[in-house]
Amino acid sequence: MIEKVIFIGAGNLATQLALALHEQGIVIPQVFSRTEASALALADQVQAAAITDLSLVSPEADLYIISVKDDVLPEVLENLNLPPDRFLVHTAGSIPMDVLSGFSENFGVFYPLQTFSKNRRVNFSDIPICLEANHPANWVRLQRLAARISGSIHQVSSEERKSLHLAAVFVCNFVNHMYALGESILQDKKLDFDLLKPLIRETSEKINDLRPVDAQTGPAKRYDQSVIGKHLEMLNDRPELRKIYSFVTDSIFQFHQTNAK
Amino acid sequence: MIEKVIFIGAGNLATQLALALHEQGIVIPQVFSRTEASALALADQVQAAAITDLSLVSPEADLYIISVKDDVLPEVLENLNLPPDRFLVHTAGSIPMDVLSGFSENFGVFYPLQTFSKNRRVNFSDIPICLEANHPANWVRLQRLAARISGSIHQVSSEERKSLHLAAVFVCNFVNHMYALGESILQDKKLDFDLLKPLIRETSEKINDLRPVDAQTGPAKRYDQSVIGKHLEMLNDRPELRKIYSFVTDSIFQFHQTNAK
Repeated sequence: MIEKVIFIGAGNLATQLALALHEQGIVIPQVFSRTEASALALADQVQAAAITDLSLVSPEADLYIISVKDDVLPEVLENLNLPPDRFLVHTAGSIPMDVLSGFSENFGVFYPLQTFSKNRRVNFSDIPICLEANHPANWVRLQRLAARISGSIHQVSSEERKSLHLAAVFVCNFVNHMYALGESILQDKKLDFDLLKPLIRETSEKINDLRPVDAQTGPAKRYDQSVIGKHLEMLNDRPELRKIYSFVTDSIFQFHQTNAK
Repeated sequence: MIEKVIFIGAGNLATQLALALHEQGIVIPQVFSRTEASALALADQVQAAAITDLSLVSPEADLYIISVKDDVLPEVLENLNLPPDRFLVHTAGSIPMDVLSGFSENFGVFYPLQTFSKNRRVNFSDIPICLEANHPANWVRLQRLAARISGSIHQVSSEERKSLHLAAVFVCNFVNHMYALGESILQDKKLDFDLLKPLIRETSEKINDLRPVDAQTGPAKRYDQSVIGKHLEMLNDRPELRKIYSFVTDSIFQFHQTNAK
């Protein structure tokens, strides 16, 4: 049974996951971050000790959740001096589980499929937790831990996780960028972004009932040239947005030629 | 007081607006559509007569809501034979109000800022209704009608409405296309689109508390080359998606260099 978890990393994901586990009674003895302020900020919230030196990581935890930037992970693993049976997981979407195999006999992946910011609490209860482990017994240990915070637990291979992460970039990061561009268009005319919020909400809710291809509306779908032409003209002084507009519009039209019923 | 409204057009927007007004006791004597099936489908739901001939439009209504494709509007106006004092509005985001000025003494725009599909009912109560009228008295008449279905009524000029419509394309149609592309990535691996729904919901809700630029997460924001490189490689066999990925990623990175705090 996993009761003591040490966090290696104190970024957005680590912060929200640590808070959720802490709330469910998991003990977090230590939080490591190279940046002292980050280590302290999270450690304070979960009654942990903040450390900035990997050699100080205690060997006494049941699980080590390594949640650092992808390009820092190899270096962290090299410098983590733990007994070889310590249970290590990472939380990265695009890194195979096996990068951990040279560093422990017990390892896996704990990947919550969600967008996290440090200062916005999220409710974990329906967040899909994608788990992978090097051994069925380790999978069960992770599954029991995940069940303390979420009702949506999934066995996901490294290959599948990569696709989930890629799709997540489209439906989250790219979507959020469209919000940012929409806001910037309104700012130019001093119009309030709040006017778009009911539309944003309905667009996100519509796909609970309709497939996205069937939920699509607007000028691109049928290539309504008179509207598209006006919009492109309005973007003449914003070449960056004009390119995105024209490119995504073409893609929608082609997608609907191929996929619409 | 507007009590009788005739709908010219029976598309997605006309359908949802007619249903909402009908529910609030507005009488809809006729629904016109060039396509008999469309005219009938809507007319049946709002106890109206379906007509497919513009010369049969009754002169007895208090308001004529013209909700047709942008490129059909001029032809519809030419063929609508009504006394010159009849109150006409259109519902188009990108068409100036003044296209109606040659056809009546009383005219305006009734533009609900939302995405509509024929078979998905929407709750109008918080949908921004953007109104414009050629005369203050007409504005008040539209405002009173709009107030029967929505608590969010706005005086919006033709220029402002164009910008709202353009921004709406980004935050609705383009966003929905990102959902469609995300779904297609998962389909390739037989993964369930439902796994992305908590992420989609949180992404849309996050911007109620944070500006989109501050809500952004993921690899593009800091140009995390190792993740971006893997993702582009995964899209080698889907050049269309690869181009969108690379293009939107660059745009996010540039946007964050310029706008992030």
